[in-house]
Amino acid sequence: MEEMPSLKDVEDAAKRLKGKVMRTPILSSRLLNERLGVQVFLKCENLQFAGAFKFRGASNVISQLTPEERSRGVVTHSSGNHAQALALAAKRAGIKAVIVMPEGSNPYKRAATEAHGATVLTCENSQAAREAMCREEMDREGLLLVHPYDDARIISGAGTAALEFLQERPDLDAIVTPVGGGGLLSGTATAAEGRCPVYGSEPEGADDAHRGFTSGERVSSQTPHTISDGLRTCLGVLNFQVIRARVAGIGLVTDDETLEAMRWVKFHTGQAIEPSSAVPIAALRNGSLPVSGKVGVILSGGNVDPALFE
Amino acid sequence: MEEMPSLKDVEDAAKRLKGKVMRTPILSSRLLNERLGVQVFLKCENLQFAGAFKFRGASNVISQLTPEERSRGVVTHSSGNHAQALALAAKRAGIKAVIVMPEGSNPYKRAATEAHGATVLTCENSQAAREAMCREEMDREGLLLVHPYDDARIISGAGTAALEFLQERPDLDAIVTPVGGGGLLSGTATAAEGRCPVYGSEPEGADDAHRGFTSGERVSSQTPHTISDGLRTCLGVLNFQVIRARVAGIGLVTDDETLEAMRWVKFHTGQAIEPSSAVPIAALRNGSLPVSGKVGVILSGGNVDPALFE
Repeated sequence: MEEMPSLKDVEDAAKRLKGKVMRTPILSSRLLNERLGVQVFLKCENLQFAGAFKFRGASNVISQLTPEERSRGVVTHSSGNHAQALALAAKRAGIKAVIVMPEGSNPYKRAATEAHGATVLTCENSQAAREAMCREEMDREGLLLVHPYDDARIISGAGTAALEFLQERPDLDAIVTPVGGGGLLSGTATAAEGRCPVYGSEPEGADDAHRGFTSGERVSSQTPHTISDGLRTCLGVLNFQVIRARVAGIGLVTDDETLEAMRWVKFHTGQAIEPSSAVPIAALRNGSLPVSGKVGVILSGGNVDPALFE
Repeated sequence: MEEMPSLKDVEDAAKRLKGKVMRTPILSSRLLNERLGVQVFLKCENLQFAGAFKFRGASNVISQLTPEERSRGVVTHSSGNHAQALALAAKRAGIKAVIVMPEGSNPYKRAATEAHGATVLTCENSQAAREAMCREEMDREGLLLVHPYDDARIISGAGTAALEFLQERPDLDAIVTPVGGGGLLSGTATAAEGRCPVYGSEPEGADDAHRGFTSGERVSSQTPHTISDGLRTCLGVLNFQVIRARVAGIGLVTDDETLEAMRWVKFHTGQAIEPSSAVPIAALRNGSLPVSGKVGVILSGGNVDPALFE
């Protein structure tokens, strides 16, 4: 198994990414605090390039490629934010990118991926079909796989958001992120270790991380039912290991709670965030996390169909 | 007449404000560029503390007060963003603030001003009534007036947004801002002098700046009819002088164009901005400004009634 990334790896990633990723702002709202009963600080990765924290990990991988690897190009499978992030990071570096997206992917995210100049291929909506088509491209075109989350470089890159967060707000009592494949949560927990506890939050309809965290056995398949399209995947192997070692707990929320949280964030901060990003806010609201005082939330992404707010 | 602020004044303000104001992010959207026919970069002062660029000027004044002045407290009249900004800057410095707001002010902005702990007084909706009530408070309580725009410290503070903008995007071919009292436009033009041309933009229903700029005679009263509530005031005396000397032109837009621009910005960047902030986008769209290439727009504020987007 791959070795768990360290705080040093996250710090190295931050140096590598300086000037390449956006140092996103931290917003707060007194009225939102009153609604939630805690003082909440929002790290706006929804404003990150390509609209999500994913750009940090993708850029961390791309910027470490050798000239030979760069000439080959990259491939991944993703239904959304990682697709856009890798497409943009590759475009900026002048590298070819092929993205395999399952049928039924968010059309808004697909259009953005194409707009970043990537070649988008469509496959059946199953993990097996995604991996098979990726493998085919790797074999035929010599492309390098950039996994969306189960990769120490992706985890370290994702952790740089928490590093910035704690630089600006060293007084945070806890940080909460959503958890899907586990890249953001494991990176955040790695960056914050010894500074403050880190919690995950996920939809009841895709609760593999919560179950695995509780039982100690990683859940490797599930049939997700949730509007939070970024959180439908199962935890990666390395991600599971890091989360078991470094995360304090995982809260669960319903989709109705998520939709309400989206509306609150928009109302009080003007930010249109995607459902996955609202999950931590919903978890603060429903009391499924034992946090108090000053709580940092990483708003993971803003690639939402604007029609959801109409 | 007060002396025009210099680039050095803006640079000094930036040093003074370091760590006190948010270094706001710059967003862009390929699809928005396609709609506008220029490459546009948005400096998100809607995410600034207190929700608008006004916090820069207010903080620049507050941070230069003597201990004796601090003990007296401050007063201003404002229907909106300057009210919130001064209230927050004063609260952070532990200084008393009294804000005179005219009847009919945006209730959302009024509530936020009160939430920042200021004493809010209501006056009749006329320039004379606002100034009279301010004067009364100054005389009775010994409060210091912090004018919303007609003040070199306010102009220099507002200019720090453009300074940051040009640090990150030295390749801008032009910068466009809205113009009401003229604090942002004159500060921006001062910061950008010799770097790139700066344009203003204002609603047809409050076109005093355009008329004054064209005729050379400042328009000192008008009866505004526009949804852009931040742009209903007339240009200040010092602001007019700076704008005549340093601004390249002023575009005009209709309220319908402004509303459409608000929706575009929300759709393509997820940012809920107030109507005043959408005026430069509307001016880019309707061709009333002779700009091309890479155009910077300062999104002046985000203190909008969220119901406008429902």
